[in-house]
Amino acid sequence: MRLSRYFLPILKETPAEAQIVSHRLMLRAGLIRQAQAGIYSWLPLGFKVLRRLEDIVHEEQQRAGHIPLLMPTLQPADLWRESGRYDDYGKEMLRIRDRHERDMLYGPTNEELITDIFRNTVRSYKELPLTLYHIQWKFRDEIRPRFGVMRGREFLMKDGYNFDLTKEDALHAYNRHFVSYLRTYERMGLKAIPMRADTGPIGGDYSHEFLVLAETGESEVFYDSKVTDFTFGDRQIDFDDVAALQGIYDEWTALYARTDETHDPELFARIPEDRKRTARGIEVGQIFYFGTKYSEPMQAVVQAEDGSRVPVHMGSHGIGVSRLVGALIEANHDERGIIWPEGVAPFKVGIVNLKQGDTDADAACEQLYQGLAARGLDPLYDDTEERAGAKFATMDLVGCPWRITVGPRGLKNGVVELTSRRSGESEEMSPEAALDRCAQIFAGH
Amino acid sequence: MRLSRYFLPILKETPAEAQIVSHRLMLRAGLIRQAQAGIYSWLPLGFKVLRRLEDIVHEEQQRAGHIPLLMPTLQPADLWRESGRYDDYGKEMLRIRDRHERDMLYGPTNEELITDIFRNTVRSYKELPLTLYHIQWKFRDEIRPRFGVMRGREFLMKDGYNFDLTKEDALHAYNRHFVSYLRTYERMGLKAIPMRADTGPIGGDYSHEFLVLAETGESEVFYDSKVTDFTFGDRQIDFDDVAALQGIYDEWTALYARTDETHDPELFARIPEDRKRTARGIEVGQIFYFGTKYSEPMQAVVQAEDGSRVPVHMGSHGIGVSRLVGALIEANHDERGIIWPEGVAPFKVGIVNLKQGDTDADAACEQLYQGLAARGLDPLYDDTEERAGAKFATMDLVGCPWRITVGPRGLKNGVVELTSRRSGESEEMSPEAALDRCAQIFAGH
Repeated sequence: MRLSRYFLPILKETPAEAQIVSHRLMLRAGLIRQAQAGIYSWLPLGFKVLRRLEDIVHEEQQRAGHIPLLMPTLQPADLWRESGRYDDYGKEMLRIRDRHERDMLYGPTNEELITDIFRNTVRSYKELPLTLYHIQWKFRDEIRPRFGVMRGREFLMKDGYNFDLTKEDALHAYNRHFVSYLRTYERMGLKAIPMRADTGPIGGDYSHEFLVLAETGESEVFYDSKVTDFTFGDRQIDFDDVAALQGIYDEWTALYARTDETHDPELFARIPEDRKRTARGIEVGQIFYFGTKYSEPMQAVVQAEDGSRVPVHMGSHGIGVSRLVGALIEANHDERGIIWPEGVAPFKVGIVNLKQGDTDADAACEQLYQGLAARGLDPLYDDTEERAGAKFATMDLVGCPWRITVGPRGLKNGVVELTSRRSGESEEMSPEAALDRCAQIFAGH
Repeated sequence: MRLSRYFLPILKETPAEAQIVSHRLMLRAGLIRQAQAGIYSWLPLGFKVLRRLEDIVHEEQQRAGHIPLLMPTLQPADLWRESGRYDDYGKEMLRIRDRHERDMLYGPTNEELITDIFRNTVRSYKELPLTLYHIQWKFRDEIRPRFGVMRGREFLMKDGYNFDLTKEDALHAYNRHFVSYLRTYERMGLKAIPMRADTGPIGGDYSHEFLVLAETGESEVFYDSKVTDFTFGDRQIDFDDVAALQGIYDEWTALYARTDETHDPELFARIPEDRKRTARGIEVGQIFYFGTKYSEPMQAVVQAEDGSRVPVHMGSHGIGVSRLVGALIEANHDERGIIWPEGVAPFKVGIVNLKQGDTDADAACEQLYQGLAARGLDPLYDDTEERAGAKFATMDLVGCPWRITVGPRGLKNGVVELTSRRSGESEEMSPEAALDRCAQIFAGH
């Protein structure tokens, strides 16, 4: 994208209403604009990140064998009356009445609707196991929305639901989500630690939250520092392999890692002193197994092999997609702006032309622009008339992980400059070498 | 995708409530399920088509230089009070009150919100031209929703908005949309005819609707049959070339083509008798130029070159993405089911294993499955234990444009059968030849 043709409304001043760094940077770098309290428009740069995260979530869910669909944002109230949650949910649920005076609601989650789809279509154990998911906008009418997209009212979530014949199968589905979430966050460049969680109003026996460590996190967390050493790397996973997934689950959960809700001071005390950590974390995902909590009241039953009709075992599994944009920035920024991890960067490489209008500089930039695009490395080319300092500041603010600086002086020596946004280190090389280096850096992302 | 692991709830019986063929087929082939009147869940197959259409719209919009963002589904009522449309809109607008008693609404369209974003960020004519668009769920509380996704209440729409300094520039933006829409529909395998349209409640002077001819269309249309001969083909378009776009616009609009709303019997009478056509059409898109209708009351002004502050010239341009799924089926089906055009098929090629469990047949199917996937041709492999007739019926119903049939008898002679869903014609060839042929067929889609 050529900046002269893009829509990137950058703010010079720090917005007073933003209390945390991700909110400030998302406003300043032109990722979002507030439409009303807790409801945001995603400007082009923000939308590009959001879409990238959505794509990663889709890919990793489908790799795990989960099947995408799309449920609507508005749901009939009757389904929620059936499960008993219509009255429980309180004022966080946005209740709506249509022109025929029918009660509807803007879905805060989808257990009821997916269970309704299931019970109307699936009859036999032979059609199991089944995990369906969607990525859709949700609404929770927070009494005091804040922190930008981190605690918004209209938010984008991936929520998935497994349907299994037995508890054992459902726990395999639980592990499948556990492992695919580890992969998902790691691909995004995030260290998200699974922590034993309270099951809260959704209920059930098993739950883990995935937390990104950040000073501004809403939860206090307690953990054994060794748990942060784990990486998923490029292990090849067969998501049907029950024992392999259980092994990964056991590996990650053997060490102590809990939020304040499930914290057990006695167990924590047993961690070697030099590995005890207390910190704050942002929840970016949660998985649940809740057995027959919804299938029983809503009659989601299948015929088992012996002919009997049994309620299915279910779980639900969420990733906060819009919130992840905020979490990524909380974990990846400095005083100059955002530093996108390579895997999620909206633009991979920035090109700064130090002397727009100079024939050689313009031509070299144009070649780099085409070359990066041809290699699938979406470039952002600052082709405006701004002075160099302003161009650098913009690139630093919007967080392209790599920058190529092109100027007439360097070009006389046949070189451009490649700079890492994260380390700040620069290296001079030929334009061709810079293209090759960028291709190397982003291989696998 | 292996059918045994997919979620494809096919209905044996024709649903009584569905009055038109696309609605019937979408229910029968497991594309959608009604959640409540006019609101649908998109089951996996339906979601896959919808996402494919969304991708095509994104690609074609960006090719034309338009910039994607994403506005929220819920909007503040105050913006609509400012434009004067809050009271005008009537009961079709879904009005909502949040926990703090603030008036909101589920956006039926986005002129107000995008104008608000524009006026808060853009100051100078130098930042123009600018066209922003999004693909987002909308809601219109139709008094009598019907025809499935063709006249639903919650629907997915691409809506784009151009901001230009002058009427002349805005008319170029109008032409840009006109031409990019022609490309978009043609890529989808649809013949959509632009027809002069009434500007209706949005107002303004210029508008065209794009209509797909179909017996079940809601509009009566009148046209010169020569207009259906036009094709866009693989012309290379420079969307900045004002004269070139005007030329295409003139070419397409020189012949008579109007809906009942703008029909002029006198002009129609001048068409040669053998080219006069009256038919029915489904509206799948509409473009508008409406000048300063919103920019004046909402103060969306920029500084012009001479320092004066002038309201921008705007237009809005919509494609009914969810409705297109219905329109595609209305235009592409037979008595056995859907026939997806190659460009939008959710699964490109179906594989039918005539004897599941037969070592040779299973191995050949597996090889075809891998081979198609490696060529980017998303296959649907019916690996169930169903009998052949049921497998063929399923493939015909869900509409894979090509089918490869694999059986032990053919394999003894080294052949499988490749069948066109549209023509019904079959040809025997080696599995390798079938892969190559499929790759050829889908090249460019």
